[in-house]
Amino acid sequence: MTAFQELDTPALLFDLDVMEANITEMAKVASDAGVRLRPHTKTHKSPEIAAMQIDAGASGITVAKLGEAEVMVEAGQTDLLVAFPIWGESKLRRLRALSERAAIRVSLDSVEVAEGIGRVGAELGRDVPVLVEVDTGLHRLGRPPLGPTVDLALAIARVPGVEVIGLLTHAGHAYRSTTPEELRRGAEREALDLVETADRCGRVGLEVSEISVGSTPTARVAATVPGVTEVRPGTYVFNDVQQMRLGVATEQDCAARVLVTVIARPSAERFVVDAGSKAFSSDGGDGPPFPGRGVVIGRPELVLDFMNEEHGVGHIQGDAELSIGDRLQVVPLHACSAVNLFDVAIGIRGDSVARELAIAGRGRMR
Amino acid sequence: MTAFQELDTPALLFDLDVMEANITEMAKVASDAGVRLRPHTKTHKSPEIAAMQIDAGASGITVAKLGEAEVMVEAGQTDLLVAFPIWGESKLRRLRALSERAAIRVSLDSVEVAEGIGRVGAELGRDVPVLVEVDTGLHRLGRPPLGPTVDLALAIARVPGVEVIGLLTHAGHAYRSTTPEELRRGAEREALDLVETADRCGRVGLEVSEISVGSTPTARVAATVPGVTEVRPGTYVFNDVQQMRLGVATEQDCAARVLVTVIARPSAERFVVDAGSKAFSSDGGDGPPFPGRGVVIGRPELVLDFMNEEHGVGHIQGDAELSIGDRLQVVPLHACSAVNLFDVAIGIRGDSVARELAIAGRGRMR
Repeated sequence: MTAFQELDTPALLFDLDVMEANITEMAKVASDAGVRLRPHTKTHKSPEIAAMQIDAGASGITVAKLGEAEVMVEAGQTDLLVAFPIWGESKLRRLRALSERAAIRVSLDSVEVAEGIGRVGAELGRDVPVLVEVDTGLHRLGRPPLGPTVDLALAIARVPGVEVIGLLTHAGHAYRSTTPEELRRGAEREALDLVETADRCGRVGLEVSEISVGSTPTARVAATVPGVTEVRPGTYVFNDVQQMRLGVATEQDCAARVLVTVIARPSAERFVVDAGSKAFSSDGGDGPPFPGRGVVIGRPELVLDFMNEEHGVGHIQGDAELSIGDRLQVVPLHACSAVNLFDVAIGIRGDSVARELAIAGRGRMR
Repeated sequence: MTAFQELDTPALLFDLDVMEANITEMAKVASDAGVRLRPHTKTHKSPEIAAMQIDAGASGITVAKLGEAEVMVEAGQTDLLVAFPIWGESKLRRLRALSERAAIRVSLDSVEVAEGIGRVGAELGRDVPVLVEVDTGLHRLGRPPLGPTVDLALAIARVPGVEVIGLLTHAGHAYRSTTPEELRRGAEREALDLVETADRCGRVGLEVSEISVGSTPTARVAATVPGVTEVRPGTYVFNDVQQMRLGVATEQDCAARVLVTVIARPSAERFVVDAGSKAFSSDGGDGPPFPGRGVVIGRPELVLDFMNEEHGVGHIQGDAELSIGDRLQVVPLHACSAVNLFDVAIGIRGDSVARELAIAGRGRMR
């Protein structure tokens, strides 16, 4: 195993102590609230980390696509939600194959998609469990809560071969919250919207048992709303600058970092590191209280002003020493997208390399 | 070979006819101007496409890192510029190994980096050719033209084991041009800055023979400035929405597209496709005259408003028909970063699949 000091850069680091603490804490959040935890594994795409989440108490996992599901089932996962509408004969064949090996549920927001999945159910000889996605404000998939979703859920429930087991939402608009109070209110609203819609479904004869909500910023609040059965945070495993900005994580909670080397000091203020948007992605905005394109661990005086594909360009606030060859650990703005650029991560404990972790789901585009 | 109609989505498509025309056109630009073309292959990371560029007249290739260089040398490339300061024992060992197999030149902007490369030269028993990077306005690597660069070039020239063969710049600030005239003036300035600095070097006894300039938006102008010896455009192979905005490409010139499927129509206006920032990247800004997060080929009424990791969310301007299951070809804002997310591309001619191309350099992080 390469010593930490000899790791070449850029390298993706996972601080295993921090990661394990994050996994334990969110499992306790769910357990204390009496809801199930189904973490979104698109954040790490690592079968090893998924297994750690299950060992800590998660009831199953969430994936974004069949390629991720296949990697996870191959590694032994048995209860998966594919949180994406599955369309097309090729993907439906893969859904069928997966459903013969594991318990697979799917979220969707249309009768058209339900009809395809229903054909898989007919072939399997049992209904495929589906969750109807609800638009609680992100304006991505789903219809608004209450009447529009009740109508859609009833129409989907009439499709042969699928069973509507619940409602699901992703309240990604929570990321636009500017105060903790706005975030808290939004998280409550996200959960209440689904609980109230499920209640309306029940009144017209469609009993749904699963209410699935919660991203990393909203899960801690949403889990406590009566009626919620499941939360699906993803980023909490690593946290990132976006979570720091929202006030749900600190620098010390951030487990995923890119190890970089200073490769130029073109002027007294400027420095350049050997990683840019092809290591960090360009996801996530710049802003206070953590300016720049990433947070340099323990070095608040170093601000990464912009990134090109292979360069991170920053400036030094004040008089700090920084030389060519110095190494820095940088927390990405959005961990999920940064991790997705690497095929392997280095698990560290303190300043020691513990083991490598394969980002085995990376590159599964479908 | 899968028929075009049966390609699963999202898939990265390279329109080979368009790509070949782009390769031919830029080779002619260089040839007509009497300069060498050393295309930046970070755009495609494909040994096959690099070979096509050489066959069309390129004198060598540019890469962004040693991992890309290794892939290209393995595939038979013999003349490479690594356009990045190489630092650290591990990378210097790889530079030495590469230098035993191919002609490798390196760009840099410090004595510290030159000293490491000089040790490689000592081991090889011959000087490593280097180009001194000049800051012509991007404020990334390099010192300003004229005096500051002359001083740096003289200092680097005194380092044993390296030979200063030229000056190099990347005028990435050209991407901020708002008019064709501003772009043209910037491209001329980029080239003149280097020619004038090389002249000053000559007057103090440091003869440099290589003046290497030019990105896709500036190469056509910069190539014509007397004294320039080499241009290094990359994106021209594919073009993208950034190039369309700058007026140096049209939709018909864009060879790289992501094939996507409409997987939801949550409202009369809204549509969702099965690819987001993990297929397109989040590089590149939104703005007129091509609004949105990509350009849908032949469907200007479809505007992609935002992307999450796996979702592209748009709206329909007007009354166009669009159904779940419809397939669209979307030009990314920044082709280099989108291509970097795929391990393989599908080469098409018209609506037929011609062959697969491996993005063999993807995932070489170092």
